[in-house]
Amino acid sequence: MDAVSALAIRHVPALAPGDRLGPILIEAIRATGLEISDGDILVVCQKVVSKAEGRVLDLASVVPSPRALGFAREHGKDPRVIEVVLRESRRIVRMERGVIISETATGLVCANAGVDCSNAWRPDFVTLLPLDPDASARGLLEELGAHAGRRIAVVLTDTFGRPWREGLVDVAIGVAGLRPLIDLRGRTDLAGRPLEVSVIALADQVAAAAGMVMEKGEGIPAAIVRGAGAWLGQGSAVEMVRPPEKDLFR
Amino acid sequence: MDAVSALAIRHVPALAPGDRLGPILIEAIRATGLEISDGDILVVCQKVVSKAEGRVLDLASVVPSPRALGFAREHGKDPRVIEVVLRESRRIVRMERGVIISETATGLVCANAGVDCSNAWRPDFVTLLPLDPDASARGLLEELGAHAGRRIAVVLTDTFGRPWREGLVDVAIGVAGLRPLIDLRGRTDLAGRPLEVSVIALADQVAAAAGMVMEKGEGIPAAIVRGAGAWLGQGSAVEMVRPPEKDLFR
Repeated sequence: MDAVSALAIRHVPALAPGDRLGPILIEAIRATGLEISDGDILVVCQKVVSKAEGRVLDLASVVPSPRALGFAREHGKDPRVIEVVLRESRRIVRMERGVIISETATGLVCANAGVDCSNAWRPDFVTLLPLDPDASARGLLEELGAHAGRRIAVVLTDTFGRPWREGLVDVAIGVAGLRPLIDLRGRTDLAGRPLEVSVIALADQVAAAAGMVMEKGEGIPAAIVRGAGAWLGQGSAVEMVRPPEKDLFR
Repeated sequence: MDAVSALAIRHVPALAPGDRLGPILIEAIRATGLEISDGDILVVCQKVVSKAEGRVLDLASVVPSPRALGFAREHGKDPRVIEVVLRESRRIVRMERGVIISETATGLVCANAGVDCSNAWRPDFVTLLPLDPDASARGLLEELGAHAGRRIAVVLTDTFGRPWREGLVDVAIGVAGLRPLIDLRGRTDLAGRPLEVSVIALADQVAAAAGMVMEKGEGIPAAIVRGAGAWLGQGSAVEMVRPPEKDLFR
């Protein structure tokens, strides 16, 4: 890989539940003046996928539990949002200082189980993560790959905080057509010693690179990452979830 | 930002303590056929900086403490390496299952306090993190910026694991001439609601993008990230360390 580029996809309109994201992205890519090439990785932020898939929720329909009411009152939060976060969590990792870090149904560990109030479909709605982000990625892969007649990959991203470090980075929550982890185990350095760096989280590096051009709040929810075609192959984002028994921070 | 590219810098020779990294990188950039442009971010992996700065250590000189001996025996590790890791740590975050996650002198939290056995200077040597990675970045910025007559930034990277996710990503451990965090607080979405995504860890996204072309074990320890010049400015990697009182995972 001598050069890898992230190219912003502009002209993606506001989405509503039921919209077909594939044709919308195809048109946006065309309107941006881009063309899908062999080896391209199409990166799409979770929010537009969630909206198209109808993973939005009217907060007026939510009745908060006593637990949600208590946490919301203590920390000045909307109890309906807390209730949705708790429902979207299969396990709570931390719930303190107004912050909920939890594990989603697909094993992602993140703030608020991915429930998001900004840029939702309508006021007083929230967006939820796609039910099966890998399946969403596969759907887009089939649709856009077939349309363009190209071999491509798709990465769905969300923007996560991390322990110990300030700021958020885009990470891969759904993957299709890409090897998400590059396994260097068994390789050695120039002196024949095993490499300390063993497995590279390629799909997260792709997501982070795309994150530089998918500017938040500027309506750029998608990008093409070009130049990483050597890593196309089989894979899913589920492979990137560390098994709890190997994790020191659950 | 419509496009951001990461360009591999080839032809960086093996380094030894005392080598002047600035001129070596200038020559490698030339030999690769690249030219430094205004707004470029020069990304350099920690290991070559550490070697040039003499941050290498002969394990033969290390006498392990009883604590290092005990942990090494229990987990089949080299007690001299464990001893160096403990010395480089100002605080241990986790020390179990053969893994040490600790805090370095500059507040980075990572495996083995950044002590690395692969690609070290000589057999039986380890590399340590630069004493002051921001200062190392500033030094390279002055040298390469002045040489090229361009306004650039420098990011020093290391490859870190993360809780909950498999695989390693490149992160920024030293920054000069770049705003490492992009603060979106106060901005609103199209409907006037505050953005959920508040602060972007730009320098880490830059590091991750560069990480795709800085292939481990292939002797590509540096890259140019081009197209992100709008974010050049004042900054340091110390800003990216979350204060302990705000951290739920120390």
